[in-house]
Amino acid sequence: MALLFENGDRIVFAGDSVTDMGSVQPVADAMFDNLGHSYVRVIENLLTASYPDVFLRITNSGTSGNTSRDLKNRFDRDVVDLNPQWVSICIGINDVWRQFDVPALTEYACDPVEYEANLREMIEKIKDRVKGVFLITPYYIEPNRKDMMRARMDEYCDICRRLAKEYNCIFVDFQQMFENFCKIRHSSYLAWDRVHPNQIGATLMAKEFLSHCGYKY
Amino acid sequence: MALLFENGDRIVFAGDSVTDMGSVQPVADAMFDNLGHSYVRVIENLLTASYPDVFLRITNSGTSGNTSRDLKNRFDRDVVDLNPQWVSICIGINDVWRQFDVPALTEYACDPVEYEANLREMIEKIKDRVKGVFLITPYYIEPNRKDMMRARMDEYCDICRRLAKEYNCIFVDFQQMFENFCKIRHSSYLAWDRVHPNQIGATLMAKEFLSHCGYKY
Amino acid sequence: MALLFENGDRIVFAGDSVTDMGSVQPVADAMFDNLGHSYVRVIENLLTASYPDVFLRITNSGTSGNTSRDLKNRFDRDVVDLNPQWVSICIGINDVWRQFDVPALTEYACDPVEYEANLREMIEKIKDRVKGVFLITPYYIEPNRKDMMRARMDEYCDICRRLAKEYNCIFVDFQQMFENFCKIRHSSYLAWDRVHPNQIGATLMAKEFLSHCGYKY
Amino acid sequence: MALLFENGDRIVFAGDSVTDMGSVQPVADAMFDNLGHSYVRVIENLLTASYPDVFLRITNSGTSGNTSRDLKNRFDRDVVDLNPQWVSICIGINDVWRQFDVPALTEYACDPVEYEANLREMIEKIKDRVKGVFLITPYYIEPNRKDMMRARMDEYCDICRRLAKEYNCIFVDFQQMFENFCKIRHSSYLAWDRVHPNQIGATLMAKEFLSHCGYKY
Amino acid sequence: MALLFENGDRIVFAGDSVTDMGSVQPVADAMFDNLGHSYVRVIENLLTASYPDVFLRITNSGTSGNTSRDLKNRFDRDVVDLNPQWVSICIGINDVWRQFDVPALTEYACDPVEYEANLREMIEKIKDRVKGVFLITPYYIEPNRKDMMRARMDEYCDICRRLAKEYNCIFVDFQQMFENFCKIRHSSYLAWDRVHPNQIGATLMAKEFLSHCGYKY
Amino acid sequence: MALLFENGDRIVFAGDSVTDMGSVQPVADAMFDNLGHSYVRVIENLLTASYPDVFLRITNSGTSGNTSRDLKNRFDRDVVDLNPQWVSICIGINDVWRQFDVPALTEYACDPVEYEANLREMIEKIKDRVKGVFLITPYYIEPNRKDMMRARMDEYCDICRRLAKEYNCIFVDFQQMFENFCKIRHSSYLAWDRVHPNQIGATLMAKEFLSHCGYKY
Amino acid sequence: MALLFENGDRIVFAGDSVTDMGSVQPVADAMFDNLGHSYVRVIENLLTASYPDVFLRITNSGTSGNTSRDLKNRFDRDVVDLNPQWVSICIGINDVWRQFDVPALTEYACDPVEYEANLREMIEKIKDRVKGVFLITPYYIEPNRKDMMRARMDEYCDICRRLAKEYNCIFVDFQQMFENFCKIRHSSYLAWDRVHPNQIGATLMAKEFLSHCGYKY
Amino acid sequence: MALLFENGDRIVFAGDSVTDMGSVQPVADAMFDNLGHSYVRVIENLLTASYPDVFLRITNSGTSGNTSRDLKNRFDRDVVDLNPQWVSICIGINDVWRQFDVPALTEYACDPVEYEANLREMIEKIKDRVKGVFLITPYYIEPNRKDMMRARMDEYCDICRRLAKEYNCIFVDFQQMFENFCKIRHSSYLAWDRVHPNQIGATLMAKEFLSHCGYKY
Repeated sequence: MALLFENGDRIVFAGDSVTDMGSVQPVADAMFDNLGHSYVRVIENLLTASYPDVFLRITNSGTSGNTSRDLKNRFDRDVVDLNPQWVSICIGINDVWRQFDVPALTEYACDPVEYEANLREMIEKIKDRVKGVFLITPYYIEPNRKDMMRARMDEYCDICRRLAKEYNCIFVDFQQMFENFCKIRHSSYLAWDRVHPNQIGATLMAKEFLSHCGYKY
Repeated sequence: MALLFENGDRIVFAGDSVTDMGSVQPVADAMFDNLGHSYVRVIENLLTASYPDVFLRITNSGTSGNTSRDLKNRFDRDVVDLNPQWVSICIGINDVWRQFDVPALTEYACDPVEYEANLREMIEKIKDRVKGVFLITPYYIEPNRKDMMRARMDEYCDICRRLAKEYNCIFVDFQQMFENFCKIRHSSYLAWDRVHPNQIGATLMAKEFLSHCGYKY
Repeated sequence: MALLFENGDRIVFAGDSVTDMGSVQPVADAMFDNLGHSYVRVIENLLTASYPDVFLRITNSGTSGNTSRDLKNRFDRDVVDLNPQWVSICIGINDVWRQFDVPALTEYACDPVEYEANLREMIEKIKDRVKGVFLITPYYIEPNRKDMMRARMDEYCDICRRLAKEYNCIFVDFQQMFENFCKIRHSSYLAWDRVHPNQIGATLMAKEFLSHCGYKY
Repeated sequence: MALLFENGDRIVFAGDSVTDMGSVQPVADAMFDNLGHSYVRVIENLLTASYPDVFLRITNSGTSGNTSRDLKNRFDRDVVDLNPQWVSICIGINDVWRQFDVPALTEYACDPVEYEANLREMIEKIKDRVKGVFLITPYYIEPNRKDMMRARMDEYCDICRRLAKEYNCIFVDFQQMFENFCKIRHSSYLAWDRVHPNQIGATLMAKEFLSHCGYKY
Repeated sequence: MALLFENGDRIVFAGDSVTDMGSVQPVADAMFDNLGHSYVRVIENLLTASYPDVFLRITNSGTSGNTSRDLKNRFDRDVVDLNPQWVSICIGINDVWRQFDVPALTEYACDPVEYEANLREMIEKIKDRVKGVFLITPYYIEPNRKDMMRARMDEYCDICRRLAKEYNCIFVDFQQMFENFCKIRHSSYLAWDRVHPNQIGATLMAKEFLSHCGYKY
Repeated sequence: MALLFENGDRIVFAGDSVTDMGSVQPVADAMFDNLGHSYVRVIENLLTASYPDVFLRITNSGTSGNTSRDLKNRFDRDVVDLNPQWVSICIGINDVWRQFDVPALTEYACDPVEYEANLREMIEKIKDRVKGVFLITPYYIEPNRKDMMRARMDEYCDICRRLAKEYNCIFVDFQQMFENFCKIRHSSYLAWDRVHPNQIGATLMAKEFLSHCGYKY
Repeated sequence: MALLFENGDRIVFAGDSVTDMGSVQPVADAMFDNLGHSYVRVIENLLTASYPDVFLRITNSGTSGNTSRDLKNRFDRDVVDLNPQWVSICIGINDVWRQFDVPALTEYACDPVEYEANLREMIEKIKDRVKGVFLITPYYIEPNRKDMMRARMDEYCDICRRLAKEYNCIFVDFQQMFENFCKIRHSSYLAWDRVHPNQIGATLMAKEFLSHCGYKY
Repeated sequence: MALLFENGDRIVFAGDSVTDMGSVQPVADAMFDNLGHSYVRVIENLLTASYPDVFLRITNSGTSGNTSRDLKNRFDRDVVDLNPQWVSICIGINDVWRQFDVPALTEYACDPVEYEANLREMIEKIKDRVKGVFLITPYYIEPNRKDMMRARMDEYCDICRRLAKEYNCIFVDFQQMFENFCKIRHSSYLAWDRVHPNQIGATLMAKEFLSHCGYKY
């Protein structure tokens, strides 16, 4: 399988803080350090290092703290209007997390029903305007599926998987990838809060993403 | 049971970052904000609010990042030489944590054998010079006892419990207290990294400590 | 008496700098350190530590420097519109203080007539929309009732007590509580300026407040 | 009475934070803003403005937080070795204050016996090497003589007055001056903490000092 | 002659940087350090220290860099609308200075004709609404009247003097006062740039101003 | 070919600013962000992501501005004493650069004779204590071999290649790798100054290095 | 040839970062350090030092990052509306650079056709309103004409030269001047990135510019 | 006359703040912005721009606030030990200034006798080890020779001129140069405090210095 991306393609990565990680707000291209230091930057680095003759435009549309509701509200401005050839959506961590760290502030979270609706609305907006949509699961870097928050996250991952199938998106399973890694090393090796990965975590995510793109190292 | 502490007593809290939390280094008394914002401050606040006529001197000898080896090395200067009437020791979290977040840097961690030896050396240095020694378990705010790091922490807690019994120390079980709390709320409500508590966590720790002191709210 | 507050209740604390103390402006919920470090935070900590299964939403609507006039002007936005079940009002210190520290700037203070009118307007706005209103006296941590400023403050405390009775509010007397404490320790132990308390003072205030709420430690 | 000071005289003001107030440490002459903004600066300003043809060297040897013990320990370096013609000593506030704001930290305060000994040692060291010594009372800007801390301060003022007489020093009574002012305006007009004066307070202190120097405005 | 100012009077000092000197912008009353550290603050300090029973409101309406044109343009907002009983105007230094330090930027300066017109417009706006207007000369702390800039400044001082007479204002001659002082000490003792005075200079200006006010030290 | 590195191996990367890039000084292990953001970090990331079960200790001994002389002088402390299994040396850029940007400051540069001697001394110190030594060429990201500085750099690269052969080191040719890349994209895409690479450059360097290590992506 | 500029003339330098270099935005006259530290300041310094009796107004209208499109868009506000007697335009570096450092972000660059159109539009706007227009080439401090970016820059320089001739502008060839200098010293002596010169580079540019102005040192 | 300086010469400029102006302390070569922004930098810029093939090493040994005594005390370390071919000494401004701005601090100034001795000691130390010594007058940018400080400065200039003759140094008269310039423009155009020049002043000084060096622009 050849590289999915062709010369001149623009790829927009929409998401929350794990996509953002210091990127210029609200939308950033690869210039200076604008792109931040999440998996998006690692993907850009690996693609260019391996395919110097393919000119791609990588755009980071991640914003820290976003739930699927927040992302949906800015989706036109920060994704659709950029006219990308490819879109990646990785959202849902905050939809779940707020249910556990600030349970009394109920308007901060999104329940599964709303999550699905938000995701669906975004996919429908963009799917016919691009060459492909990547749907990435939210995740909690916790291998114990009985952990309250991991269990809740799995509900959202299931929705994500189901919609990917329904809409024929490329499905990327960060949750499963992290679970595999945690069989060997403890989550604190990647992220003390089990959410925001260090650069090793970002590299794992980039590898996982690229494994769906026909990328040859 | 009456309050253990008497007018004029000095209580020194030795420990790592969960004891330290912004206290002036290396040793701090209750003056300005010197005491930091860990359970030590909450203990001082509750004691004074409930017993305004008992003058106690609360000292924070916590230092961020310390293992039992680090604490042992500064124990004379930061604990013994202060001539306290009471000493509280809460150490071991970093002895364990370093085995999981930087496994390659083996000199950063302490194994159970060394942990026990360090603890023993500190207790023997101080026990005959004070009215009482508090031995507090290290902890990982994770209710799943099969979690790699929690399981390892439990080994250290067992050592701590055993030595408390052997030396007739007052045993305070932070690990058990946090496990109980996590039956109701998720760990991320107290500490995103399952170690450094917010002020609710600090209050829980202070309550647990004071429950062994004859404290009446 | 059981705890006044029920699962899901929102409690809004309106006030000036002694309520604010570093809280996010203009209105802050308990998330990160947003709540500041006044008695509001201590109340939140103690409630959660003692009742982990009761989910309450504590909101700090304190703003430094506010007089009763300032609070009245923002009362709709910062209190009423939040739809709380409980409201606490602690205001008046600056109404008095400005008469003594900047006597020439007369528009900075509020005289007793205006203070009463402001308080009354706020109570009437909110009383039928909530389960209960707490009315807390302003205070000056000075036990000598003949001190010019303490004497003036007492006039405002009297108004506060009278309105609490008239409107059937829960009356909390910080002034009396501080007077009692000062029989044992000097005011400089709590607050060098006799207004802004340290964390011991905040704990005293929280205890006093909670003593009216059916709180069991 | 003509101006006490003659062309070329050096006047050293020794003291604590109310003398220091931002002066360069440990000793500062009138150059740039080195002199700080306490009464020392106001004295220097008024003297030069009224006597432009008299060249005086004004030196600030005040250090924040000093008790009489601290000042005594640095008296050789910061006062005697400067070879002044005149020395002013204003010390004692912290000797008293620490007894009230941190009563448990007993080594921070000096009791009256030590205060007298410290003062005596400093006076004897310097009296025969200068044209005159000013002895200034410590103070608490509180008109109520029954206030715990004011009452304690008066004991120190009495010692100060007695030694001034015994050693034939020029006695300056800041405590009495502030008491008089507080009959008209509340202490919070000068200093929220009743110790550190604003610029009006500094001007009052300068006026009081200069009233003993044959100064004509 | 008794003090000109009566209980409750407000005095507004309009001017440029030598009036401003760090005062809160655009208009500042005596609260915290808002008043800045120019002669305005020294006047406020001396008045209160000598007349504690007279409550005056001192307002600093000085703004750094202002020419007479700038001051005229904000005169309604920053002076007239404050309803003062007394107004002091000290302007013109920048009208002249810009002719010498940036001669090519001609729109930065005001020539004598405009200066007179601006001054006249401000006086006429305010004179019938106040108890008195102080007109203070601009100045250059340079005793050599043949210096290019001093000579130019003298033209402006003459206009100032003439208008003071015409409109029956109280005339304060800072230029003459500084010339006198410079017979004894060099200008660099007061101000390295011959414009912005240190605190001794501010004290000299305050003394000069107060000598026209019936002030008794 | 299997991965060169085995479980427990320590690899020390010695060098100048292109190795350092913000690493903690003088020597840093992979903990927090201590390792900086040069190719060293990318190597660590890729190794762990691909071989999670191999525990390696990666150490950055790079220091900005170092010439071969500076590195030689600290080689015992920062490399030998760490007892590594593998050592990588990448030095020489500053030896050359200083000849062109500050030609008058001759003591800042090292000529080829000294460069060879320094390199030789370091290799001989370490070669028998490790499993292998990597010798990496210095470089100038400039494809034009006639550029004055590139031409000079090539002399140093030749020395590097010759010594690698002589001492049986693993030779890594960054200069050649960059020359190849510049056939496709301009040097300004990687580094505006042709020396300090951005993250794409760092990734290229990591790939080049790993291509000599039996690394499988 | 006498100096082109006459008393009272205003000269506006329009450009990008090499003109800007820290100048106050968007337009700055010579006052304080407003003018920045590019060749514009050196020109101003040399002119005044050599012709103290000629009063010129030098204005810096350079803005970092500008392409010819950006400059064109602000040309009315920042150049025409200032009513200069002379205008200097030095633009085009970023038009080219963006084609090499961020080739995927195509909207950041301007191709030769647009460059010419932009330049033409600016010249036509201003040429009949001034005494003269200076047209300065963009440049890349790289003597190798086969370097990708230098070769591209030469296309823009040619356009610049052609338009200067067509519109009878004074043509200043920074590119040629730098090429000459690089025959003697390497580009890294002037600018590590071959664009932003140090003060020696700025002096070279000023000398080159002044050589077209009848300037006598 | 050809340029005095030859390839490889080192020229050290010793002095006070007007030589220093932000240079790296205590001694700085031309690298980054180390050289500061005084006349030393302008000299370096002009020399290199006009003689790119002559490699000179320009060193700034100026230190703010130095008197001739301070410079003498560090002369071995900061001048002699650098083995220069040429030395320039410009000292004395602070010897004089301190007599006027802080007349009471007599140890801060140097009288003419000491000034001459200090200068003589420095010249004798260096004169036989160098190709030439430049002796530059101190100055006060004040054309009125009757000004107190200018008159005093002239005494020091006379000493400087006399010693230059006696020791056959190259004499550079900054005082005369500034006096000439002030016939055309006011001192405030160059330096508000008549000492620290802006960049135009620095350029004037550089031109004056170079006029003694056979420099051709």
